[in-house]
Amino acid sequence: MRRLDKIMYPESVAIIGASEKEGSVGNELLKRMLEFKYNGKIYPINPKYTSINNIKCYAKITDVLGGIDLAIIAVPAKFVGGVLDECHLAQVDNIIIVSSGFKEIGGEGLELEKELQDKIEKYNMTIVGPNCLGVFNADGKLNFDGCFAPTVPMVGNIGFATQSGALAGGVFNISEAKRVGFGQMVSLGNQTDVDALDVLEQWESDDNIDEIMLYLESIQNPAKFRKVATRVARKKPILAIKSGRSAQGAKAAASHTGSLAGSDSAANGLLESCGIVREYSLREMFNDAQVLEKCGLPKGKRLGILTNAGGPGILATDSASDYGLEVPTFSDELQEKLKKITMPQASRKNPVDLVASCPMEDYINVANEVLKSDEIDMLLVIYLYITGRHDMDIQRNLEELKKKYPQKPIVVSYMTTPDFFEKVKKEIKNPGVPMFDDVSDAIRGLSLLVKRKQSLADIKAKTPVFDVKKDAVDKIFAKAKKEARTLLTTKESLEALKSYGLLEPQWGSALNIAQAEKIAKKIGYPLVLKMSSKTISHKTDFGGVIVGIKNLEELKKAFTSLETKCKEAGVWNSVDGIIVMQHIKGSGRELVAGIAENGNYGHQIMFGIGGIFVEALKEVCFRPCPLNMRDADALINSTKAKSIMGNIRGKKAVDTEVVKNSLLKLSQFVSDFKCVKELDINPFMISEDGKFLTVDARIVTK
Amino acid sequence: MRRLDKIMYPESVAIIGASEKEGSVGNELLKRMLEFKYNGKIYPINPKYTSINNIKCYAKITDVLGGIDLAIIAVPAKFVGGVLDECHLAQVDNIIIVSSGFKEIGGEGLELEKELQDKIEKYNMTIVGPNCLGVFNADGKLNFDGCFAPTVPMVGNIGFATQSGALAGGVFNISEAKRVGFGQMVSLGNQTDVDALDVLEQWESDDNIDEIMLYLESIQNPAKFRKVATRVARKKPILAIKSGRSAQGAKAAASHTGSLAGSDSAANGLLESCGIVREYSLREMFNDAQVLEKCGLPKGKRLGILTNAGGPGILATDSASDYGLEVPTFSDELQEKLKKITMPQASRKNPVDLVASCPMEDYINVANEVLKSDEIDMLLVIYLYITGRHDMDIQRNLEELKKKYPQKPIVVSYMTTPDFFEKVKKEIKNPGVPMFDDVSDAIRGLSLLVKRKQSLADIKAKTPVFDVKKDAVDKIFAKAKKEARTLLTTKESLEALKSYGLLEPQWGSALNIAQAEKIAKKIGYPLVLKMSSKTISHKTDFGGVIVGIKNLEELKKAFTSLETKCKEAGVWNSVDGIIVMQHIKGSGRELVAGIAENGNYGHQIMFGIGGIFVEALKEVCFRPCPLNMRDADALINSTKAKSIMGNIRGKKAVDTEVVKNSLLKLSQFVSDFKCVKELDINPFMISEDGKFLTVDARIVTK
Repeated sequence: MRRLDKIMYPESVAIIGASEKEGSVGNELLKRMLEFKYNGKIYPINPKYTSINNIKCYAKITDVLGGIDLAIIAVPAKFVGGVLDECHLAQVDNIIIVSSGFKEIGGEGLELEKELQDKIEKYNMTIVGPNCLGVFNADGKLNFDGCFAPTVPMVGNIGFATQSGALAGGVFNISEAKRVGFGQMVSLGNQTDVDALDVLEQWESDDNIDEIMLYLESIQNPAKFRKVATRVARKKPILAIKSGRSAQGAKAAASHTGSLAGSDSAANGLLESCGIVREYSLREMFNDAQVLEKCGLPKGKRLGILTNAGGPGILATDSASDYGLEVPTFSDELQEKLKKITMPQASRKNPVDLVASCPMEDYINVANEVLKSDEIDMLLVIYLYITGRHDMDIQRNLEELKKKYPQKPIVVSYMTTPDFFEKVKKEIKNPGVPMFDDVSDAIRGLSLLVKRKQSLADIKAKTPVFDVKKDAVDKIFAKAKKEARTLLTTKESLEALKSYGLLEPQWGSALNIAQAEKIAKKIGYPLVLKMSSKTISHKTDFGGVIVGIKNLEELKKAFTSLETKCKEAGVWNSVDGIIVMQHIKGSGRELVAGIAENGNYGHQIMFGIGGIFVEALKEVCFRPCPLNMRDADALINSTKAKSIMGNIRGKKAVDTEVVKNSLLKLSQFVSDFKCVKELDINPFMISEDGKFLTVDARIVTK
Repeated sequence: MRRLDKIMYPESVAIIGASEKEGSVGNELLKRMLEFKYNGKIYPINPKYTSINNIKCYAKITDVLGGIDLAIIAVPAKFVGGVLDECHLAQVDNIIIVSSGFKEIGGEGLELEKELQDKIEKYNMTIVGPNCLGVFNADGKLNFDGCFAPTVPMVGNIGFATQSGALAGGVFNISEAKRVGFGQMVSLGNQTDVDALDVLEQWESDDNIDEIMLYLESIQNPAKFRKVATRVARKKPILAIKSGRSAQGAKAAASHTGSLAGSDSAANGLLESCGIVREYSLREMFNDAQVLEKCGLPKGKRLGILTNAGGPGILATDSASDYGLEVPTFSDELQEKLKKITMPQASRKNPVDLVASCPMEDYINVANEVLKSDEIDMLLVIYLYITGRHDMDIQRNLEELKKKYPQKPIVVSYMTTPDFFEKVKKEIKNPGVPMFDDVSDAIRGLSLLVKRKQSLADIKAKTPVFDVKKDAVDKIFAKAKKEARTLLTTKESLEALKSYGLLEPQWGSALNIAQAEKIAKKIGYPLVLKMSSKTISHKTDFGGVIVGIKNLEELKKAFTSLETKCKEAGVWNSVDGIIVMQHIKGSGRELVAGIAENGNYGHQIMFGIGGIFVEALKEVCFRPCPLNMRDADALINSTKAKSIMGNIRGKKAVDTEVVKNSLLKLSQFVSDFKCVKELDINPFMISEDGKFLTVDARIVTK
């Protein structure tokens, strides 16, 4: 039995605060439950009535004989605590509190919320809310509408969990028009007990739910969220809006839910790492939900386009290019086959332009032929109502073709009159072939199928474990701790990362010219000198770096000058060495990697374009630690850093596997050493010959 | 009288090829003209009939007595030539040819198209098409539906010109659902005579048209397009889709229209330079058209948000941030005022959350109060149908508020059931306050109003003229011409740009060490040596650049080595000097500017991030020459180059006015010297102290 089973599938429900008063929440709840033909027992509870709508009404929940699966509480906030006591007496411990007036209003609301939390703990209750719209379950045997949204949605297999109750109402209002059907809905409210995670775990194994939509304003427990959501997202597509992205929006969210919105880059990294499709608007979420729910996953990214008008075919081709899909020209053989089943004026290369005057059969014959071929992985059908009126026939036939080719997603874009959509609503209800107005929206949906297919590859979820010298690093951190330092020296930082297998230029550490000379002899010129200090964190600002040393004479001069500088500044005793490092010929390809902690989001790895461009270009990407293979791929591929790693102007491309492994090793490093507070590798340089080298590093512990 | 007046406003129309046959184009045309209640005289022409639909039918157009304003030809392509002869005899020279089978099919179609062109010229005719859907004019006195689209659109004040005829049909089909009303439509077809430009000029002074939508697959005459479209766009908003953006899409477009699509960066530069809103999908075009048609232009970018649900309010705030709008927190004073007219639970900071249970009056009172205040420039109203049902009342009241505050755009986003939109269609028809489903779409529209307001500032359209030394450059080009060279030497290139006022590091040109020494004495060290040759274009590849020269000794060594190298390679006699240039301390801030010719698009200026990042980052922007102030602004602001110009890590910011003027001077340069084929300034360097310097240049003539 899942935790929320009695809340989502109750066989009996008490409505505490049920009322005869039109427009009151207690009235709405009862009315909707009756209208939706709830297939269980309803117990209205209200001392004012003996019956409501011909249903016996009880004064108290303890008056009801026989067990009650679920209580929905709709009484003013100040009475909720008392009601919970009674629920406990009546052995009812699954509860939805729709009442508002808790932490969201601050002041006394905070106290009431605290009281709630205490009772939940004391009575070991499962509670949805408070300050929520309730829950909804369209399961045909149950028909449980336990919310007070103004409308019921189109029925389907999507679960929607939302931190904004009103939004659930809004989403239900537009569900039919958007052709997105819901199976269950949970309005999370203040999430005093049940949160988005509990709902994800519930839906993970509920066969009535094929896909999950989330509206989040905050993520309570990112670490646990990541674990659960990653697991669930592999089984069922999850689409999520996380609002409060902007500073302005976060402010609005804070005043709305009382929860402080985390940094958006961390939230984004978390959602994407889980394999959740992040959405930025409801329009996009509804758009994509249709495709991810209804289509199988394609083998590849080759798209066939079928149209009766050239213009939209070109628009679709442009859009396919934007979203990384291929529109391959059909083979001569296939074109020959198509010639026999199309009008003479038709174009058959892909897009196939059947021309405006084509009969409906051409659509179906050609769709069948190209789906049968091995030349495409998915199909977009475009229909403009121009001459004749075939929209309904096309949709019906595509529904059949879908059954025949379940592994080749089919979507359709109609530019037709609204009465068609009315007709579909009546005759097909919830169409299996997703329907769009705009070709670019259809293509966007298809591209998500390709992305999902790729991200589900088993290897992607793995976090490899590298053979590293953890002991060596233990010693480094221990020493720093003993000396009560939070800053590691450059020498220690470089040694630590080297112990985890990160590549570095050749270097040694010297405390006098003789030692430096010895190292230089081994490495050769040109060289760089870097001060390694226990107290000076930003050595460049201090003038602690000398580059371009070409010979012994220059080395001696540089060493002396650095030593003198440190002595004069009184920091020589903080110096554990002067690093003598091979000077890597600057190919200009500087990347950056860093670790930061972001509030409750934990360790985040950042990777992207480094050098002076870090702030200016903002071509960096974040992922939570520990990284898995998919995260590492994303860090490498999500920004223009990717182009810099290629073969540029004769400079050798870096092996991206090396980059990926470096990031994974870095992740292993901070997983092993949770004491790390900040870690910067800047630059992470690609040498002219394509090596990927940690040229400088800085580590700070907590 | 405008060129297309007889085509758009004909008082009498001959339909050549009119027919009784159901489904034929000749039949459709006649039927639609009757159904739409055309308020002029119709002359069906077809030797097969004496009357069609009780209208007298003529065998030939020459049989008609009395003048005919317009002939619509719907006979097979091979007969069109003959029909034109007859039209000429009948003194009918305004013609629409809907027939297809011309250049779009290649082969014999090309010949027929040629014949058409000859006749147009010979007879001095004005022809729309061939291969088009016709034209449409909803003008209430005329009701002229001269096309065979399957539906008539919602009537409004938008003009739509399209290179895809079928798309016109599609657009009409969805017009009502999208709440975008059309006044006129021209299906351009093959544009043998009348093209998009003619239509723009027509609508420029037609008061029935307030806004223009374009669907383009190619731009015939970019220079003329720029001139006309820039002028028209200042009077009426123009929105344009230019398809065939991608390589795949261009291929599809080529096979569709036979026109070779130009490079998209050039097309994009052209459209944006004209002040046209470039759209990438029909959804976006319809979205934005609503706002640009119906709203006045706001004074600033401060947005007020009014909602009855927190979630969508936050989403709107995030979106406003994405689109560069401000959502200012209201003053205490205004919040006090709002307190009196809202529910106690409401939040009044902005977004104003009226809460789900608020009465309709709250919406109107608060909207009025915030519009009256000086704290916002525009308003987004969000309404979720949750408790009570106020959508229709809200829309009606907002229509009134719009009249009261015409300079403060109001848009509204509804999450309500589809029957509401049906009701609006019946009761309000074409609402004056644009309606959206999604808040982000509403915000996108508002942001375009702000952008338009900014771009209409008079100064933006100006192209300043700088005082330059044109004579000096004349001489340089003359010399190259005399020597039959297309490549200018580095020395010549630098001199030429300097003559146009571009800033350069100090430099001189030397042919021997003594001269070099003299220059060095004047400039000081460090220095760079660059070979300046009449034949070697890429001097770096040749090894013709030596950097980091610190003293006289190194200068002598470098000069000798360069001279020797040239002599050994046998190119010393092509060298007009060795450039001795001040070595600008690399701040790493390298920009690039270039001139390229792109097919028929003419000279384009490119500007963006330079160095090795040019190709990798693709942070470059294109604009056609000559640049105006708005173009120069766009070049600077459209890419991340903008961030590089700022104050980065203690390096001084460059004065963007200097950058802007440099680009404008460059534009003046190529306007004066049309012989320039290629021109690269790479790097265009920002020195540590914020100077903007042409460090290297390369000019090639035609």
